[in-house]
Amino acid sequence: MIHVYTGNGKGKTTASLGLIIRALGRKKRVCLIQFMKKNFEYGEIHFLHDVEGIDIFQFGTAKLVDPNNPSDTDFCEAKKGIDKVFSVLGSNQYDLVVIDEINVAVKWGLIALSEQLKIFDVTTDSEIVMTGRGASAEVIDKADLVTEMREIKHYYTTGLQARKGYEF
Amino acid sequence: MIHVYTGNGKGKTTASLGLIIRALGRKKRVCLIQFMKKNFEYGEIHFLHDVEGIDIFQFGTAKLVDPNNPSDTDFCEAKKGIDKVFSVLGSNQYDLVVIDEINVAVKWGLIALSEQLKIFDVTTDSEIVMTGRGASAEVIDKADLVTEMREIKHYYTTGLQARKGYEF
Repeated sequence: MIHVYTGNGKGKTTASLGLIIRALGRKKRVCLIQFMKKNFEYGEIHFLHDVEGIDIFQFGTAKLVDPNNPSDTDFCEAKKGIDKVFSVLGSNQYDLVVIDEINVAVKWGLIALSEQLKIFDVTTDSEIVMTGRGASAEVIDKADLVTEMREIKHYYTTGLQARKGYEF
Repeated sequence: MIHVYTGNGKGKTTASLGLIIRALGRKKRVCLIQFMKKNFEYGEIHFLHDVEGIDIFQFGTAKLVDPNNPSDTDFCEAKKGIDKVFSVLGSNQYDLVVIDEINVAVKWGLIALSEQLKIFDVTTDSEIVMTGRGASAEVIDKADLVTEMREIKHYYTTGLQARKGYEF
């Protein structure tokens, strides 16, 4: 099964994190692959690093990607990330594979949509979760489960900054 | 801040679980209060029971609530649950308090909407998260952050049953 969490609202990555702990609570083997996130302080990564049963791979840099002008390193990291996705799925070592922010990596051109679509053709027993706003129509069409997180209201819009422990 | 996760899509409880592990990764103190869930096997509860920094309180029975005909026990458990919510918030012992499925408990008449709305008037430093489909317009109006999880597509609709480790 392939799940997609997309939309402009809060809760996409956190929903995938919740699935991760649900699966870990069932002694399933989990892999978390994150695009465009590396060497950055995330509360969830602190937590999960100490947990048994999960492997975490991050691809990106500490700098935010500029969607209008991604760097060579951004492209290179994304390429390494998608290669890792296929090797992880092909290994059949994991019950659950979360591919965080891949929809954004595709939307911003760091990964070709055709590459993301190949994920649907992999023969694997792994449950797959893909997150990130802006999932393409093709991805939504092919996925088994799609939730759109719709922002009804967010305190960001009142000028509040991201807060440690709640947003990252 | 009060967050609300509502809507008919998958990801409401799991998003709150993700916020929990993000907060735990920052050494915050967390309380999870669940309505209409008790003595039932949930992967996430297995996992979180062994984790430091979180207290979990469940109110309900092992039987699903019949929305058209809730039992006396259902009402009694819901009352104990809302009392716990106010004592937990008043204690100021927790940085994050997740109140899972409270929107449904109100929608089904187990708790009066006026009781849920009192949560907004409590003086507390706790970050509050309320989940469940069918959040009332008043709750949405008063909350600081609201995400609607919209079901675009779900494999349930093709007849597949809930699967251990992914749906519970």
